[in-house]
Parts: sequence; C-alpha cells; structure tokens
Amino acid sequence: MNNHFKDDEFPSVPSIRVLMMPRDTNPAGTIFGGVILSHLDQAGAEAALSNGATNVVTVAMKEVVFLEPVYVGDQVSFYSKMIRRGKTSITVKVKVEAARRRDRRELVKVTEAEITYVNVNSDREPTPLVPTSI
Amino acid sequence: MNNHFKDDEFPSVPSIRVLMMPRDTNPAGTIFGGVILSHLDQAGAEAALSNGATNVVTVAMKEVVFLEPVYVGDQVSFYSKMIRRGKTSITVKVKVEAARRRDRRELVKVTEAEITYVNVNSDREPTPLVPTSI
Amino acid sequence: MNNHFKDDEFPSVPSIRVLMMPRDTNPAGTIFGGVILSHLDQAGAEAALSNGATNVVTVAMKEVVFLEPVYVGDQVSFYSKMIRRGKTSITVKVKVEAARRRDRRELVKVTEAEITYVNVNSDREPTPLVPTSI
Amino acid sequence: MNNHFKDDEFPSVPSIRVLMMPRDTNPAGTIFGGVILSHLDQAGAEAALSNGATNVVTVAMKEVVFLEPVYVGDQVSFYSKMIRRGKTSITVKVKVEAARRRDRRELVKVTEAEITYVNVNSDREPTPLVPTSI
Amino acid sequence: MNNHFKDDEFPSVPSIRVLMMPRDTNPAGTIFGGVILSHLDQAGAEAALSNGATNVVTVAMKEVVFLEPVYVGDQVSFYSKMIRRGKTSITVKVKVEAARRRDRRELVKVTEAEITYVNVNSDREPTPLVPTSI
Amino acid sequence: MNNHFKDDEFPSVPSIRVLMMPRDTNPAGTIFGGVILSHLDQAGAEAALSNGATNVVTVAMKEVVFLEPVYVGDQVSFYSKMIRRGKTSITVKVKVEAARRRDRRELVKVTEAEITYVNVNSDREPTPLVPTSI
Repeated sequence: MNNHFKDDEFPSVPSIRVLMMPRDTNPAGTIFGGVILSHLDQAGAEAALSNGATNVVTVAMKEVVFLEPVYVGDQVSFYSKMIRRGKTSITVKVKVEAARRRDRRELVKVTEAEITYVNVNSDREPTPLVPTSI
Repeated sequence: MNNHFKDDEFPSVPSIRVLMMPRDTNPAGTIFGGVILSHLDQAGAEAALSNGATNVVTVAMKEVVFLEPVYVGDQVSFYSKMIRRGKTSITVKVKVEAARRRDRRELVKVTEAEITYVNVNSDREPTPLVPTSI
Repeated sequence: MNNHFKDDEFPSVPSIRVLMMPRDTNPAGTIFGGVILSHLDQAGAEAALSNGATNVVTVAMKEVVFLEPVYVGDQVSFYSKMIRRGKTSITVKVKVEAARRRDRRELVKVTEAEITYVNVNSDREPTPLVPTSI
Repeated sequence: MNNHFKDDEFPSVPSIRVLMMPRDTNPAGTIFGGVILSHLDQAGAEAALSNGATNVVTVAMKEVVFLEPVYVGDQVSFYSKMIRRGKTSITVKVKVEAARRRDRRELVKVTEAEITYVNVNSDREPTPLVPTSI
Repeated sequence: MNNHFKDDEFPSVPSIRVLMMPRDTNPAGTIFGGVILSHLDQAGAEAALSNGATNVVTVAMKEVVFLEPVYVGDQVSFYSKMIRRGKTSITVKVKVEAARRRDRRELVKVTEAEITYVNVNSDREPTPLVPTSI
Repeated sequence: MNNHFKDDEFPSVPSIRVLMMPRDTNPAGTIFGGVILSHLDQAGAEAALSNGATNVVTVAMKEVVFLEPVYVGDQVSFYSKMIRRGKTSITVKVKVEAARRRDRRELVKVTEAEITYVNVNSDREPTPLVPTSI
C-alpha cells in the first residue's frame, strides 16, 4: 500500500522507470515533454490501481511544473503516491526524478504533478473503489 | 497573429490535427492520455512560436481536465492561443476537440489546458521574446 | 463540405497538421518520405469521409512529386479536397505545406498528390457513398 | 547488380522484408497504407544505392495501386529493380508481396510502384551517379 | 523448405530485412541492441512457420553474441534456418548481417543466435507441428 | 551498489519498470518478445553503469528463457545485478517480473537473463572500468 507517506515523502520504489532514448527527443534535442507527461500519467494510474481502483480514467492533471530538462541517456523514475481517496476517484501525486547519464548518482528533480483518476466499469461509468485493508 | 481572441474564442485553424490510430491506445482500448498530452504540448508551443518565441521550453502545465474519452479513428484538433506574454515567457490556452469517427460533424470537446513556455537561447537560458507588430 | 474548390484552391483548414520530430528522420537527417506519405494518406481519407464515405480503403496514389525537403521542427500541414466522386469511390487532391522551424511565416510547398479511395462496408466490399446535400 | 531484369521480373531477394505488427494497423484493423508506403520508399532507395547512388532523395512516386489489403501477421516483401538511369537520377520499380499469416506459401501481390530518386551530395545538390561496371 | 542447410550455411533469402533509421538508435548513437533482438525474434519465428508451426511462442534464446555494431543507414538482414524439430517445438538459428551505408557490398556479420519456439493453439497450449513433406 | 546479492536475490528496486501497451503486442495479441528483450538490454546496462562502467556495449546475451507470456496492461519490472566484473567487462543478471493487470499483487516471473557488457570509450574501444569503492 503506498498511501502512508508524508507530504514530502514518496515510496522508494518507482511506479515507472525508463531509459531515455534518441527517439524521445524534441526538435531541440532534449527529451520531449510529451514523453514525460505520458509516463507521468501511467505512473499515477499505478498508485490508483494499488489503492482499490481496477480500471482508471484520467480526469484531471494539475500543476505540472517542469524544473529541469531531461536528456538522452538519463534514467527517469516516476514515484507515485495516493493523496486523496473518494468513493470512485483517487488523487495521486507523482514525483519525477532523472539520474543523469554521466553519473547515475547525480539525481535531479524534474517535475511533480497531481493527477485525479476515476475508477470505471467496462461501460466507462464511475464505479466504487474496492475497500483497502487498514 | 493568434493573440486577439476573446476568452471563449480560439482560432478557426488548429495548431495540430491528427488521426488517432490503434498504436495510440491504452490498455482499456481508448486513446492513451499521454498521446493527447503530447500533442497538447506541441500545439501550445505553436502559439508561442507565432507570438515572438523562437525556441521554447515548457515550464508549467495547469488545469488539464479530461471531459471526454477519445477513440481510435477520431480526428483530434488542438487549437491554441496566447493568453499572456511576459518578457521571456508566454502562456497559452489550448482547446482539444475530437471529430468522431462515425461522423466527422459530431464534435466533442475533449479538454482545455493552460501551458506556460519560456523562450530560450541555445544554452537554454531565458531570452527576450521578439517584439510582435501591432 | 470541402468540394467546391477551384483547381488551384484548397480549404484554409488542414485535414492533418503535425510537428516534425527527430524520430521522423531518415538516415540523412531530414524527414523520412514515408512519414510524409503516411500523413498524406490520412489527410486524403479525411476529404473522403467529409464527402459521403464512411469507411475507406486506399486504392491508388498517383503523382506524388516531392518539391522540397522537410526538416525537424517544421510544422507540416496537409490540405485535402475532393476532385472526383463516383458511385463508391472518391478521388482527392492533397497539398502539403511546411512552415519552417526558424519562422512559421516561411511556407514552402512540399508536395501535392492525388489519391483514390473506395468506400467499403465491414466485409471490405465497395459500398455506395452517402448522398451529400447540395 | 539488380538492373538486368525483364519488365515482369524482379530479383528473387527482397530489398526490405518485414513482419506486420498490431502497431502498424489503421482504424479499420488492417495494415495502414502509410506503413506500406514507408517501406516502399526504403526498398526503392536500396535499388538506387545498388546502382551507383550514394545518398538519395525521393523526388517522385507514381502509380501506386493497392490491389490487396495487408493483415497483422503477414510477412511483406518489397522487391526493387532499377528501370531507368539518368546522369544524377534513378527510377526504380518496386513490387510488394504479402505472405499470409495462416500459410506463408499463400502469396498475394499487394502493390507495385515506380519511384524516382536523385543522387545528392551533402549539400543536397544533385550529384552524378558512380559509374557501374558492365 | 529451409531445413537442409549445413551448419555454416543459411538460405540466400533473408526472413527479415530492414533499413536502420535514426529512431532505432541508443544513447550512444549506434543501433539499439533491442532493435536487433526484436527482428531476430521475428526472423526466427519465420523459420518455424516455414517448418510446420502455425502459431509460435518464443521459449528460449541462447548465445547471442554481438560481433559488430550496427549504424544508422545500414541495411540489416536476418537469415534463419531450422536446426532441430521436436513434436511441438522448433529450434532455429538466425544469422544477422549488415550491409554498410557507404557501400552495400561491404557486409559484416553482426550476430548469430539460437532460438527455440513452441507451436501453440489459441489457448496457448503446445500443439503438434504440421508434418512437412520430405 | 547492487553487487552484494546472493544468487537468488535481486535488488528491491527495479532498473526499468514499464506499463505494457497495445502497441507492444505481437500478432498473437500478447506482448512481443522483442519488447521484453529491449528493456532487458537496457536494464542490464543500468547495473553495469552502477558498477563502474560509463558507456557500455552489449557483447553477449545468454540463456533467456521465457517462462510466462506478458499481457497488455501488465506492469513489468526488470531487476538487475552484477554477477561478474572483469577489467573492461561486466556480466549482469536480469530478472523480469510481471504484475498482472487485474491485480498488481499477482506477480509472475517472466524470464531471467545473463548479459555481458563491455565498457568502451568514445572510439568504441574497450576501456577499464572505474574502480568502485569497497
């Protein structure tokens, strides 16, 4: 369960972790923001799935601030944790961190985002979350 | 110049317009949110480039609310307009609309977002926007 | 309805409009012709869908002449219009234009093509086009 | 040297041969025409490179007639041969054949195209072809 | 039938042949090993399909030794032949060869691998291979 | 440092962790082996980079046994650890585990592989590993 973290804490295990490749670049040669946003969306959904959701739809993403560019060869980790849980929706915080190519010990915070997901059934109707054990 | 639109108005010509393909789907079979977010980021940058920016970096994205799912075969249009212009930064609003596969006249609003870009030089340092004519 | 254009005219709104990314390049570093041809095919199909087709199959593409190379960072627009309409088939003209990265006002014509589509049912058999209003 | 073939003959070894994957499909579920056109362009360039070109640019593609749809799981072969050789340009014919998934011995002709390439130097200027031995 | 080759022989026609593009590169700028491994897996499956398998699952890959790097612009050929045939499984050898961009006559051996496939039915259960004629 | 694990132990934090998407499937609808092999190669390289390598080339992959299929929606984790360290080369073991879509707590072992990397300089010549602290 990844729902017992303090405000500035995240789980130590990432939800998504990828290596940035040349095909992920934008015309300026750095990693395209869309690639980061794609993994961000996937990572947040993982926290929802770990907290009682079974099939999620993204309803809102807010406050994505890009602090540092990401480069080809960086290993990028997306850590996610639940911050609110409604009857059918879950709000998740995702932290994105890049380990630079030159030295994997050089970690920079890339961004942090807050995403809300709704749990849906196969007809895409909101559906109650499965209760999670205490 | 696409900077003379009212709050609820957008240019009639999209900045990005794409056809949704099977490779753009998520595990649920609808279009992956990351695909929409990627084009959103590109579309917003176009409005920045049309308003005095020459090379932009995305610094913040806020209030992306997904109203409707997008399906394979939809034609999705991303309309963008500048809403604020600083010395080195531009804030853009992007409206996303899907024309359904069955009938291209059936238009649904998918989302709307506000994105801020900073104009940078080749060393990625903030750089003044080119003045735009009245 | 985009079927009332003169021979040298195209609608002012593109059917497809995309930003060229590094992943779209060929070994020479310019945009791979296959990427342009892919969007060309999609853009032509849009004109068919707007003129009574419901599900199209490409049957022939002729006279694609590449006038100018396309580069990473260019915004490429594909304008399409119907030029012939049979009982089950539609022939479309597509014009491709690139707005250069350095200055979006610098527009170059990339190519023009003529593509024929056949309207098919779910068994892939030719099927009459839906009559379009005058 | 693949330039000694009769009009209805092609080399027995394909220039490009690929397996069609789900990511190559169009909204109708068959293989997207753009995928075929992309490999067609690559296959034709191979015949140019085998006949004295060192770096080619596609200048024209004509008469691409799609005879049969291609499906996921098909193995598709692109055979190419030179049909004309100018001072700086080469015209190539490409035949596309699909071996069906169910039985690789079931071969269907998918399309045939004629493509012209120009040999260019690093400044993209037309450049004489290297003479080929008799 | 491609099962009558000596140990150091392969069929003269490749199972897969592709042109290496910039999107296939790793952070070092050469072709990503994963791209080669992907085509290797596809090429091996072709030899299984030509020798009585109808639907295969990869069960083991062994001894893939990378002898030479592959570069953007190389034409890479994957030759495959069956080396063992059980009741439900087939073991295949795949040889990978690159024709360099500068000169297609310069051929280098990239790797060689041995892959075992199991023939499965639609429930993914091992299923006897179709007998092949002598 | 991830080099102090027993033979059956791996670090608790994956080197690569991804969500499987529809675009990653093979013609049979399960995840394409090439996708798994691609991430396997990346994950192994991470262990090399954490143990004194600065720029690696894959030289050999052996004994990749696929135990279970992977499905769309699975979250797949690649755990890697160094098992041998030479003067210029590092051998790594990678374990691949899938968390099923229906329930992320259902973990299955997908495969395990042994990969050898060589540390190279910018001319691709073998180069001594950086000594790692005790």
